[in-house]
This record gives sequence, structure tokens and C-alpha cells, in this order.
Amino acid sequence: MNVQNNTVKKLLEKYREIALLNEIISTLHWDLNVNLPRKGSEQRSHQITYLTSLITDKWIDPEIKFLLDECNSIEKLTQEEKAIVRNLNRAAKFYFQVPKKLILEQSEITSRAFVIWSEAKVNNDFKSFEPILSKIVDLTRSVADYLGYKENPYDALLDLYEPDLTAAQCRTIFEKVQPSLTQLLQKVIKSKSYNKANPLLDSQKEYALDLQKKLCDFISTKLHYSYDEGRLDISSHPFTTTLGRHDVRITTRYDRHDFKEALYSTIHEIGHALYELGIDKHYSGTPLEGGVSLGIHESQSRFWENQVGRSREFVSYIEPILSTLFQTEFQNVDQDMILRYVNDVRQSYIRTEADEVTYGLHIILRFQIENDLMNKKIQTKNLPEVWNVMMKKYIGVVPPTDREGVLQDVHWSMGSIGYFPTYLLGNLYAAQFTASMKKKISFEKTIAKGDLLPILNWLRTNVHTHGSMLFPKDLIKQVTGEALNADYYLEYLQKKYSTIYNL
Amino acid sequence: MNVQNNTVKKLLEKYREIALLNEIISTLHWDLNVNLPRKGSEQRSHQITYLTSLITDKWIDPEIKFLLDECNSIEKLTQEEKAIVRNLNRAAKFYFQVPKKLILEQSEITSRAFVIWSEAKVNNDFKSFEPILSKIVDLTRSVADYLGYKENPYDALLDLYEPDLTAAQCRTIFEKVQPSLTQLLQKVIKSKSYNKANPLLDSQKEYALDLQKKLCDFISTKLHYSYDEGRLDISSHPFTTTLGRHDVRITTRYDRHDFKEALYSTIHEIGHALYELGIDKHYSGTPLEGGVSLGIHESQSRFWENQVGRSREFVSYIEPILSTLFQTEFQNVDQDMILRYVNDVRQSYIRTEADEVTYGLHIILRFQIENDLMNKKIQTKNLPEVWNVMMKKYIGVVPPTDREGVLQDVHWSMGSIGYFPTYLLGNLYAAQFTASMKKKISFEKTIAKGDLLPILNWLRTNVHTHGSMLFPKDLIKQVTGEALNADYYLEYLQKKYSTIYNL
Repeated sequence: MNVQNNTVKKLLEKYREIALLNEIISTLHWDLNVNLPRKGSEQRSHQITYLTSLITDKWIDPEIKFLLDECNSIEKLTQEEKAIVRNLNRAAKFYFQVPKKLILEQSEITSRAFVIWSEAKVNNDFKSFEPILSKIVDLTRSVADYLGYKENPYDALLDLYEPDLTAAQCRTIFEKVQPSLTQLLQKVIKSKSYNKANPLLDSQKEYALDLQKKLCDFISTKLHYSYDEGRLDISSHPFTTTLGRHDVRITTRYDRHDFKEALYSTIHEIGHALYELGIDKHYSGTPLEGGVSLGIHESQSRFWENQVGRSREFVSYIEPILSTLFQTEFQNVDQDMILRYVNDVRQSYIRTEADEVTYGLHIILRFQIENDLMNKKIQTKNLPEVWNVMMKKYIGVVPPTDREGVLQDVHWSMGSIGYFPTYLLGNLYAAQFTASMKKKISFEKTIAKGDLLPILNWLRTNVHTHGSMLFPKDLIKQVTGEALNADYYLEYLQKKYSTIYNL
Repeated sequence: MNVQNNTVKKLLEKYREIALLNEIISTLHWDLNVNLPRKGSEQRSHQITYLTSLITDKWIDPEIKFLLDECNSIEKLTQEEKAIVRNLNRAAKFYFQVPKKLILEQSEITSRAFVIWSEAKVNNDFKSFEPILSKIVDLTRSVADYLGYKENPYDALLDLYEPDLTAAQCRTIFEKVQPSLTQLLQKVIKSKSYNKANPLLDSQKEYALDLQKKLCDFISTKLHYSYDEGRLDISSHPFTTTLGRHDVRITTRYDRHDFKEALYSTIHEIGHALYELGIDKHYSGTPLEGGVSLGIHESQSRFWENQVGRSREFVSYIEPILSTLFQTEFQNVDQDMILRYVNDVRQSYIRTEADEVTYGLHIILRFQIENDLMNKKIQTKNLPEVWNVMMKKYIGVVPPTDREGVLQDVHWSMGSIGYFPTYLLGNLYAAQFTASMKKKISFEKTIAKGDLLPILNWLRTNVHTHGSMLFPKDLIKQVTGEALNADYYLEYLQKKYSTIYNL
């Protein structure tokens, strides 16, 4: 890494402490989700809050502002120095511009909101959640105001997760994607092959948990995710977290009746972990050491989960392994049945259970609601109705309860408004990366052989190694030669599902 | 908790941050020992070093010194306030009096020494360890000088682990204990019952690990150690650590050929955990929240491990459980055989594998060496010889190699000089507590029934709840009505082993 400038070096020294504290917080969070005894949660929350306040203090340290101002006025900087200063400007902006009082108020309200949301969901009672959600929306709009934007307060929020992305750009992309997805969904469910007999759909089957663990360990090895630099544990919601540059851990969850739950959540999280582990180690402890955006991060998990993991070739490669591990359950099961099972399209109410065809529709719905909330075009009290109308329009079904509708996601209770779109962007980026990769690698052949190293190496060289050096739009341009283009995803889906469902 | 004084309150606010940071370090250490991927260790060590430096900075904050000085001049303080100020004075003394440069030098040298010791042990090469050990001894003597003492530099070190204990007191006690133990050992090994046929001594037996885990889970339940407030995991050296007042975790290790390894290390660590969990929760986040000394802490682990766990009544209670879990291995095994097996006396070279009779002798040997090193009566280069002469005298055997002799323990490489004595003190305290307890509780009967709650409640009320309110010498006086008296331990051993070995 080419860092010569002394002021940048001083900034990096300051930042290193923040990076260490962030890793420590990640460790506390990992432990909270994987190990924490029931009664330990209150104290853990004090510990995390304390470290978070230490980090806030580091960011608002006038010395950081002084050094950044100085760096911003230096004309001659190396590429790395420029990226470091740019990323620090972006990260510090939040702390410089949003008053600490507002950050604390948001933190306090969202802590309470999580509990209220949990209960509202259990009781299917949106009205009990609505007042605090309305407050969260107002606070988030204030945050956006402090952060500043040109046209749309939602731009300020999107930018936190996907640098430089605007609501207008999102809308253009999503308005193109939505009708195609809805149309494809309609075709699939009307096709003669839909709901064709498939023994794997028998929910009485049981997959022994120790064998499922073996399957996941095998997958880790095949995907070159080593337990020398990570771990695979269980948590109620699968996640990936970076505890150190050589310590990137993933979790999964097992469903006794559905082997694909653990299999695909493991592959998904390994995708995130491989990204983190593939970043140039020279960037360690600097603001270049992480993934560049949530969208690009999600492209890596979705790539392995969907482009690779749900492909006909991958299914054909793991079929003998599945049949060996689960002999009884895989009697009279052929590769086509497995392929259809892992690509089963449903008019689902629940985003996290959605297939590749409907997933994007769930996201577009949330994007529109968030954008309208930020621009005061709708009010929180009308959300259930708005939600259901869009569900009907996009997916063709209306959830029977709010629990399966507007109350299903935790995100809004946490004040996380603006990052749902990155989930769909991830799928779009992934398809575009795949199209480029296919020009260099015999994609299907190498998967069918179970030899995934050429694919991983392509990602390492083209995507992973850069860490946060390049912004998403520059990365996608550099790697694929063009800006983000949703056609790749739409074509990929069209082709794949036409084959599976004989459209 | 009765805290009224505003200056004490301010001190407590300052201390709360140190307490939080200590809990976080404990979490990092626990994870390091239980979970850490191989390649994650370097970064973890940076994280721990960073938090340690934050804690040091908190202690040397002039505000703490100012507040403490003010508190020290206040005449009217409540009992709790006095104890808080006393404990903070003690803890801060190290940071106020020992120059930061020396602390850092010690930290740097002991980091290197650990690696050198590990290799020296593997290669059975004391000479390669001796130069850095000599340096550690000199540095530790400097620390003692900065801390200050009346007669003996070793007093300053003992006091770090066992408040107010002096080398002279230790010597008086140990000089009484040593001949009795050596004599008892001689009697045992000369007895006709020694080495009597016992199928459990067959090292070919195999105890399935999942059943051993079940046994440990059962023991946890019986001892009222709840996984709601703790965990049982595996590590290479069993330990207990407090991650929060409601999160006290233990580890154990399993030996496929020896069920007593996991069984007794689990009971031992549960003893430590029950102490931590039994401390008055009002003391949380204050300098009263932990165990008062290493000796008292060890008394709680040794109490459960030996006084309870290795008693005839406990063995009789768990015999049916052992026979059910390990049916094949326990064929033709009666309770007497189990009792002899778990109380097997050996002229062992290794402290950590020693039985109750020889354990104290291993400690007394180390105490004498440490004391002589601190007083420049011996030199590190002569340690192997000194060690072997004492082994011959006390235990009657000479280790064939230094690996099984002077190189066996990690402690000196870590600069931990002065805490070995607390291991033996723990046994002495435990026996004295038991004698008092027996006046109130039908000790043997309640154990034989497997009903351990009355015993735990006695400890909770008399020992645990006080946390660090009382110094060890005041606690033992309050609980047993007299000062530490080694007779209880010697009588306990005499009686127990006379029965087992028909002396």
C-alpha cells in the first residue's frame, strides 16, 4: 500500500483504534448471537453501548477533523491515500454532521422499538408498533436532513449503505425489473410443470442434523473457506462477521425437515466471508479493509448461493453427496427433482423465504414504501394497506395477517431505512459479474467438476482484493466494462426458469 | 449497598468503565481459548493489548488519584464505602507506583518468554529458558521494590493475590504442613492397600465423549450451576471466567481414557463459578463484585472438587450414574474402587496431575524457590538442581527430565511470581470452612442424597455473598471463628486416607 503522506499516516494511526474497537464489538456481537447465556444479555448490551460510545468519541475527536481538513487540502496524494481520505470523510460525515444528541435519541428509541416490534409481531398488532415507527421515521428524516442531499432525503440514507446511489437511480432500475419479475412469476405458476410431483416437497422427511453439519463442512472445504480463518456455528439468523482480518466467522441454521435451509444459508454466508478474507491484507486496519458497500457484499453471497449453488451443474455435482448422506430421504430422487426443489418458486408472503423470482419484488415494495415515507407521501398508519395493495399487484397474493406482511422484518424497528435496496442490487451485480466471468472461465464445466477455485480466483482478483478502494459504480465498470445493467439478471432468470419449468 | 458519599460515587462511575473493559477483555480471552481460529491469534493479541492499555490509562488518570486522595481523607464512610476505597487504593497502587515503562517492559518480555519457555519445555532445555527467566525475576523484584514492603520483597507480590499475606506467615503454615504431608505420603505408598487391583486403573478403557459431556451436564445441574448464567465448553486448560455478573463460563477437557479428568475439572471450575455467581448483585460494577482473593477463590473450587466431589458419599451418589452411562467400563467395579481411583495417591512429578496428599508439596517447593529467588538466596541457573533436591526430599522422587521438573509450569514465564501459594491456601481454607459447615449441616448425609443445595446455601450466605467486602483473614475469622489453621486440612487428609488405604 502506497502511503507516504505524514498527515494521512497520522489519520491512519487514529483510525486503527477505531478499527480495533469495531473488531471487538464484532466479537461481542458474534458471542451474543452464538453463545450468550440467557441472563447475560443485559450486561452485554451495556458493554456494547460503552464501546460504541468510545468509538463515537474517537470520531468526534477534533484531531480527526483537523487532520481530515488538512488532508482534504493536499493536492498530491497517491491512489490509496485518496481512497483512505475519501472513505474517512464519508465515515466521519455522519459523526460530524449528525448531533450526538440525535444519535443517542435514535439509539434509545430503536432499543425500545425492537421490543415493541417483537411483541406487535407476535400479537399481529400493527397499531401498537405504529406510534414508535412513526417516531423512527421522523428521526431518520432528521438524520437525512443533517447529512444533506440534493433532491431526496432518501438519497442521504441510501448513500450510507451504497456510496453514491440515489433514489432516482434505484427507481429507474427497479421500474424496469418489477414488471419482468411479476410477468415471469405469472408464467411459472401457470406452467404445467408447476407443482409437479417431487418427493423432496414431502415435509415429513427428516435430515439428521449431524449429517447436515457434515454437508456444510464439505461445502466449506469445496468453497475454500477454511476454519483456520473462520468458524461455522449456529444462530437463529445466519450472519457473517469479521473479528479480525484472519478471523471471519459465519453462522447457519438447521431445519430438520429441510436440508436446503442450512445448505444455502451456509453457501450465502461463505460468499460474504470469502469477500472479507480476499481483501488485500495490506489494507488491514485501514478504512480500505472492508467490503465497499452492502450491495457489492450481497453480490458475493448471492453469487455463490444462486449463480453457483442453485445451478444445474452444482446440483449435479452435490447430488451423489446428498444421496450418500441422506440415503433414505433421497430414494427415488433424481437431479431434476433436486434442481426444482432448490429453485422452487412460490407466491410467498415472507421475504427471507422468497425464491430468486419473487425476492426482488419484496425488495422493490420496501424501496417504494421507504422512499414515500421519507418524502412524506404516505404515513406510517397506512402502511398495512399500502403493503397489501403492492403485494397483490407484484406477487399476486395478500398476506392473511400483518405478521406475515408489514410486520415481518426487524429492520425498520432498528432504524435501518435505506438498505433493503442493496439486497436486490446484490443480485443484479452478481448476474453482471457472472456474465463477465463467463468470458474467461468455463463456468458451467468448472462447477460440474466441483472445482471452484478458478471461479474464486476470478472474484479475488477482480472484486475481493480491492476492498474499499473503488466505489461500487467504479468497480462494476472496471470489472464488467459497463455500468450496472439489470438486463443480465433478467436474462439469467428468464433462461434458468424457462428450463426448469418448461416455459 | 450503602453508598452516600458523592466523591465515592464519582469514583465508582470512573471504576465502572474499568469494570466494563475488564469484562470485555474476559470475553476476548474466553473466545481465544475456546473458539479462536488458528490464524486469528495475532490480531486477537493486538485487541487485548489495546484494551489493556485503555485500562492502564484509566487507572493513571489523575482524576482517579485526586478522588482517591479525597476519599482517603474522609472520616465518615459506610462499611461499603470503606471497602470500596480500600480496594481501589489497592488496585490503583500498582498503577500509581510501578512506572508504566516497567509494566510495558514486563509485558514485552513475558510475551517473548512464553514462546521461549514453550520451546524449552518441548526440547527439555532449561538453559535456553534461563536467561530470560533471570531477567523476569529481576524485573519482578523491581516491581516489588516499587510496590514497597516491610521485610521481604516477596511480601509485595503475595499481597497482589492474597491481600495482607506475608511470606513469613506462609512459611509458618507451610513448615507445619510439609512434614505431615510427606509422612502421610510415605505411609500411603507403604500400605498394603496401595496399588491394590482396580479395574478402573486399566488405561485401555474408553469413555465415550458424548456420555462424558452428559455426566458433566448432570453435575452442573446437581451443583446448581445453570447454563442460563454460564456455559460449559472445552479448552486445553480448564478455566472459569466472568464475562458479566450473569455470565460466568467454565471450560473442561475430556480424556477418552479417564473419566475423572473432565468430571473433576468440571466440578472444580463450577466451584469458582458458583462463587462469582453468588456474590451480592448490588456490588455489580464496583470493586466489591469479584472474589476477594485467589486463595479464597481456590477454596471454593477445591471445596467442591475435593471435600464434596472426592468424598465417599459423593462417589456413592454418582456410582449408579457412572454405571449407567458407562456400562461396559464399570462392569465389576464397586464403590470402593471408584473411591480409590478418584483419590489415587502417586509420587507424581507433575503438579497439575497431583492428588490431595502430594499437591501441597508441589506448592511448598515452588513457594520456597520463589521466596529464595526474590531474596537473592538462589540463582535461576541453579533451579533444576534445587528443584530436584526438594522433590526428592518432599515427594521422594526425582523427575527424569526438566520437562517434568522445573520447566513444567507456564507461570514464571508469564511473570506470575507469588500466586502459587494461593493454591495450597485454597485447600486449607476449604477444610476449615468444611469443619464449620459440619456444625450446621449433616454434611455427609446431604451429599449421599445428592441434595447439595443446603451446602451451596451455606457457602452463599457465609462466603459468596460478601464478594470483596472482607479481606481473607477477616472472612475466615467471621465464618469459622478463628484464623487460618492448617490442622483442619491435615486432620481431614489423615482421616480420609487412613480409611481409603487402611493405614
